Amino acid sequence: MKKGVFIILDGLGDHPIKELGGKTPLEAAKKPNINRIVRDAENGIVYTVKPGYVPGSDTGHLSLFGYDIEKYYIGRGTYEALGAGINLNEGDISFRVNFATVNDNKIIDRRIGRNPEGLNELLNDFASELEKIEKEYGIKIILKSGVEHRGVLVIKGLESGINIEENDKHEEGIYLNKIKSLDKESKPLEEVLNKIIQSFNKFSENHEINKKRKEKNLPEINYILIRGTSKYREIKKEEKFENLYKLKGLFIANPPMYLGVAKYVGLDTLKPIGSNGTANENLFTFAQSAISNRNKYDIIFIHIKGTDSLSHDKKPSEKKKFIERIDEELLGEIKDYFDVIVITSDHSTSSILGRHISLPVPITIYHENARKGFVREFSERKAVKGTLGTLYGKDVIKIVLDAMDKYIMLGT
Amino acid sequence: MKKGVFIILDGLGDHPIKELGGKTPLEAAKKPNINRIVRDAENGIVYTVKPGYVPGSDTGHLSLFGYDIEKYYIGRGTYEALGAGINLNEGDISFRVNFATVNDNKIIDRRIGRNPEGLNELLNDFASELEKIEKEYGIKIILKSGVEHRGVLVIKGLESGINIEENDKHEEGIYLNKIKSLDKESKPLEEVLNKIIQSFNKFSENHEINKKRKEKNLPEINYILIRGTSKYREIKKEEKFENLYKLKGLFIANPPMYLGVAKYVGLDTLKPIGSNGTANENLFTFAQSAISNRNKYDIIFIHIKGTDSLSHDKKPSEKKKFIERIDEELLGEIKDYFDVIVITSDHSTSSILGRHISLPVPITIYHENARKGFVREFSERKAVKGTLGTLYGKDVIKIVLDAMDKYIMLGT
Repeated sequence: MKKGVFIILDGLGDHPIKELGGKTPLEAAKKPNINRIVRDAENGIVYTVKPGYVPGSDTGHLSLFGYDIEKYYIGRGTYEALGAGINLNEGDISFRVNFATVNDNKIIDRRIGRNPEGLNELLNDFASELEKIEKEYGIKIILKSGVEHRGVLVIKGLESGINIEENDKHEEGIYLNKIKSLDKESKPLEEVLNKIIQSFNKFSENHEINKKRKEKNLPEINYILIRGTSKYREIKKEEKFENLYKLKGLFIANPPMYLGVAKYVGLDTLKPIGSNGTANENLFTFAQSAISNRNKYDIIFIHIKGTDSLSHDKKPSEKKKFIERIDEELLGEIKDYFDVIVITSDHSTSSILGRHISLPVPITIYHENARKGFVREFSERKAVKGTLGTLYGKDVIKIVLDAMDKYIMLGT
Repeated sequence: MKKGVFIILDGLGDHPIKELGGKTPLEAAKKPNINRIVRDAENGIVYTVKPGYVPGSDTGHLSLFGYDIEKYYIGRGTYEALGAGINLNEGDISFRVNFATVNDNKIIDRRIGRNPEGLNELLNDFASELEKIEKEYGIKIILKSGVEHRGVLVIKGLESGINIEENDKHEEGIYLNKIKSLDKESKPLEEVLNKIIQSFNKFSENHEINKKRKEKNLPEINYILIRGTSKYREIKKEEKFENLYKLKGLFIANPPMYLGVAKYVGLDTLKPIGSNGTANENLFTFAQSAISNRNKYDIIFIHIKGTDSLSHDKKPSEKKKFIERIDEELLGEIKDYFDVIVITSDHSTSSILGRHISLPVPITIYHENARKGFVREFSERKAVKGTLGTLYGKDVIKIVLDAMDKYIMLGT
C-alpha cells in the first residue's frame, strides 16, 4: 500500500507584492525542495470552495477532505468544540467564544488585551453559577478557555432552534446587543444565552482577579462574545473519511478549530509536541510526527498555520521567509518517506488586504507516474500550465486516491 | 448545415512511459494529420466524468453524449442488451454474462478459454429448459452469446427489485456463491437467476458439446456468471439526442456495449463491415462509413477500441503505433469531408497499470473560426495551453453544437 502526505499551507496563495518585485510571497521564496517535487508532479490550480466566494479555513478544509460544504458545513462552533476535546452528541449547540472587556455596555476590547491572566481561576469560580442555570433549564453547559482570549461554549440537552443574532460583531467601540432569536423555535436558546452572558458579566465584575488585572493595567475579563453558532449533526458512519475512501488518515495540526474539522469527518488527529500554531512554528516536529506515524496510516495531512497569520498581519516578506523555512525544515526530509505528496492550501490570503481572498491556490500532486513537465516552480501563476487544469477543492482527494491506487470507479 | 465528425479514441490518455523517452504513447506517436487539425483548432483537457473518479467506458460515453450520469446511468446490462440488438421495454432486467468453467463449485476459467466452440449449439438446446422457467414464472428470458465467452441475459416481465449480489467477482480460483438479494423487493430476481444458473449448470454438464470440448482439451462451458445488473428505463422522448440537440447523429463502433450506450440515448448506430474491435482494426472501413453517411447525418461519432485494449495489455509501444495508424488511415482523408472535427477520448488508460485512470484526456475541436494557436501537437500535457481550458465530459457536446451553428442560448 502506498503512503501519502497531504500538506496544507494555510492561506498560501497571495496577491503580487511590490516590495517582492511584483512576485507573490510563494513566488519570491527560495524553495528548492518544493520545486523538485513540482517538477516531477502533476500541477494545477484549485478553487477550494467555489470560484469567487472567499473560503473560510473551515470550509476550505472540509472541501479538501472531499466533503461538499452545502451538505456538511454546520458552523464553526462545532469544530471549535471538537477541537477543544469536548465530546458532542446529536443536537448539542456550540459557539466560538471571545472573552472580552465591556464598559457601560460598550465593547472596549474584544480580546482582553490578548492576555488571559486569571481567566481559568475566574471560570473555575463561575462554575457554581453555571450550575444554577443548568438546574433551572435541565441542561448541561460547558464553558472552556482556549489560547489567549479564546474559548468555547457548549449547551447540551436544550431543545431549541439556533437562528439567533450573535453578539460578536467583530468590532470594538460599538454598543452591545442582547442575543436575539430570529424565529420562535430559537427562543429557548436566546433565553439561556442571555442568562449565561449576564450572569458572567455580573459575577466577574466583583471578582478578585479583575481587581488584580486593573492593578496591572490589564483590561477586565467581564464579558462573553459568541459567534459560529452551530448545532451538532453527526456524519453518517459510511460517510466518514475512512469508510468513504478506504484510507486510514491522520491530521496533524496545532489550532483546535482545524483539529475539530478533521475530527468531524472522522480523521484521527495529532497536535505535535512543541508546536505553537504561530509563524515561529517548530516545523521539524510536524515532519517528525508525519514520518513517525506513516506506518499506522495511509495518508497523513499536515496543516501549517503561520502562512495565513502573516498574511492577516500584512507581512509578505516574513511570509516569504516562513515559506523558505517550510521548504527546508518540513519538506527537506519528508519527501523521501512518502509515495504520494500533495502540497496545496485551504485558500489564498492577501498580505495587502490582510484578509482571505477568492483567488485560486496552486496544487502539486507527486506520484510515480505523474504527467510531469512544463511547471518547474510552485507558483500561483505557473500552476496554470499544469496537467490537472482547474480543480475544485472537493475533487482533490479523489485524484489523490487514484494516485494511491485506491481509486473509485464510476461505470465499467 | 455544417457536418461534424466526433472521434472517440478509447482509453487514449496515458501515463508517461520510460521506454518512450518519458512521453505518453499519444505524445510519442507521429501524427501529422491530427497535429494539422490541432494547430487550427480549439484545444483543452476533459475530465470526462468527474475529476479524480475513474471513468468507465459506459459512463465516459454517456457523458460525451452530453448526459449527466447521475441521472442517466442505469448499469451496463442494459447497454450490452441494446448493443446485442435486443429490444427492451420499461422494467426489463439485463445482465452482462460470461460463460464460464466451474468445477466442484470453484471458478476454474471465467472465459471458457476464450473459445466458444459449441456454445451456440448448447444455447439452442438449452432453450427448452428456459421455456420451463418462463412458464413457471410467467416471464420471458433471452440468453444470447456474444463475442468469445461473452453474452447477454435479459429477463422480461418479472416484477422485482435489482438489488442483488452478483456472482461474477472478476476472479478465478474462488468458490462460487449463489445470487443473493440484498433487500426484500429483489427476492423474485434472486430466485429466477438461481434457477436459470443451476438449470444451465445441470443441463450443460451432460451435454454432447462438453464431451467434445474435453476431447479437444477445451474447458467445459457449464456456468453463467452475471454482472452489470440493470433495469431498463427509457429516456424521455424530448431528452433523446436528436430532440435535445436538434442534430441527427450516427454512432459508428464495433463492440456491442458501445453501440448499446448510443442506442440508449437515441443515436442511430452502425457497425462497419470488416471491423473487429481489436488493435488490428480495419480503420479504413470506419473512415469510409463516416464519409458515406455524412449526407444523412449532422454529426457522426466514430469509436475506436484498440487504443484502450493495448493499454489494458500494457503495450505502450503498440499503442503508439496504433495511434500512428489512426492518424494515417482514419484521419488521412476524413478531415476534408467535415466542417467540424472533434478528437478526444472517453477516459485515460494507463499502459503501466493496465487499468483506467482518472487523469484527464486532451480534446481538439476544429471549426472554421477556432481561436487557434499555442497548441501545436495532440498531447495530454500540451492540451492544457488550449483556449478551452478544463472541461467536463458533458460540456463537450454543447461546445460542438455552437461550432456547428446549432447553439443553445440561455437568456437573451
